[in-house]
Amino acid sequence: MMTEFRPGPGDSPWSADEFEKRLREQGKAYHIHHPFNIMLNTGKANQSQIQGWVANRFYYQVAIPIKDAAVMSNCTDRDVRREWVQRILDHDGYEMNGVKDEGGIEAWIRLGEAVGLSREEVTDLRHVSPGVRFAVDAYINFARTRPWQESVCASLTELFAPAIHKQRLATWPEQYPWIESEGLQYFRNRVSQARRDVEHGLSVTLDYFKTREQQERALEILKFKLDVLWMMNDAMETRYGLEQSLS
Amino acid sequence: MMTEFRPGPGDSPWSADEFEKRLREQGKAYHIHHPFNIMLNTGKANQSQIQGWVANRFYYQVAIPIKDAAVMSNCTDRDVRREWVQRILDHDGYEMNGVKDEGGIEAWIRLGEAVGLSREEVTDLRHVSPGVRFAVDAYINFARTRPWQESVCASLTELFAPAIHKQRLATWPEQYPWIESEGLQYFRNRVSQARRDVEHGLSVTLDYFKTREQQERALEILKFKLDVLWMMNDAMETRYGLEQSLS
Repeated sequence: MMTEFRPGPGDSPWSADEFEKRLREQGKAYHIHHPFNIMLNTGKANQSQIQGWVANRFYYQVAIPIKDAAVMSNCTDRDVRREWVQRILDHDGYEMNGVKDEGGIEAWIRLGEAVGLSREEVTDLRHVSPGVRFAVDAYINFARTRPWQESVCASLTELFAPAIHKQRLATWPEQYPWIESEGLQYFRNRVSQARRDVEHGLSVTLDYFKTREQQERALEILKFKLDVLWMMNDAMETRYGLEQSLS
Repeated sequence: MMTEFRPGPGDSPWSADEFEKRLREQGKAYHIHHPFNIMLNTGKANQSQIQGWVANRFYYQVAIPIKDAAVMSNCTDRDVRREWVQRILDHDGYEMNGVKDEGGIEAWIRLGEAVGLSREEVTDLRHVSPGVRFAVDAYINFARTRPWQESVCASLTELFAPAIHKQRLATWPEQYPWIESEGLQYFRNRVSQARRDVEHGLSVTLDYFKTREQQERALEILKFKLDVLWMMNDAMETRYGLEQSLS
């Protein structure tokens, strides 16, 4: 449930530039600023904290194509579906017309192996905290039940994703030399994929949320999605701790 | 809502062969036997009846990718999603890795043009009867709310689809020479696509519905989907009539 936002009477809509600026400003609540992420990306995490993050975050990874299918199942615009299906192909992988892509979920499993987890303990979700499940499930449920344009808006945390992936690529090889470099391929792929996805999502959002009330609603939706990512990190911090310790 | 089927105690499961035979036997209720379809495919329909069928059936065509996305949004099995997404690509079309396919929805619009409808009057759904909408929406709603394996089972009307497409291809060019042959491309494409799709759907169904009670449930699900197609034809018969008349 979301609280209803009621702007005062007579509030005029923001310009597209102002609206986009306010969407981007929400990045201040992106989980790049979460203490657990700061620990991970400044080389202060131990192996069990890294393993915990990779294993828990896998639940988000497997949810993405399900969420994207839910978006498409609410979308009567064929052109949008033709763009959106690419996200499912990116994550699930495909083999089509002689081109093969193993997909992001497989790449994440490889990351799991690179940090010392078995394929089985990643894919059977045994390490996933209930708090992570509830947060991710809230996002899936949102995509199932809300108009597809609202789900597109929720996906705009991709605005902030290239920075966090680049941060991982910049610090992990040096700080965690025990992680095989090949295991980081997921992050490399997502830098360009996220950039492409967000262009599409941003143009849908700027186009759909027209009145001031709708624009405020868009900010609220993006905040909801930022909360999903933040709460995942809270749950992992609670389980794996913030202090460095021997694994 | 579906009535609950309760088999007597002790009923043992059918063998896979017997189960498949019973699924195939449901074809006796396929809309190939509906008077409206018989009229269409024996050359007895006038142009307005053919136009009415094409325009109404378009609502089913545009529902298919939405239904398939709903199936995927309920499916946690990546391998199944990788197979299933092909159905969405088939209908919506795609342009990927240098390969372009305009897709089944576009092919159906071309069929509409070939029978003398404008693109606009096909795509704005103005001719669609409420009875057709309700039937198709029942199918979408089923896919949204039921386990994905049940939706796969419902898709098994594809078992009977190649026959009806071939019937159209065999009779339409001769009986309705005023329809441009190119307009029939949709039917040509679906003969092989339906055959491929049904192999996958059948293997999922034979695998998932194990107990006798589940197998009976599968027959009931397939019957539901046959009802969807049949009721669409009832609604069209009501609107466009069965007797041949001048258009």
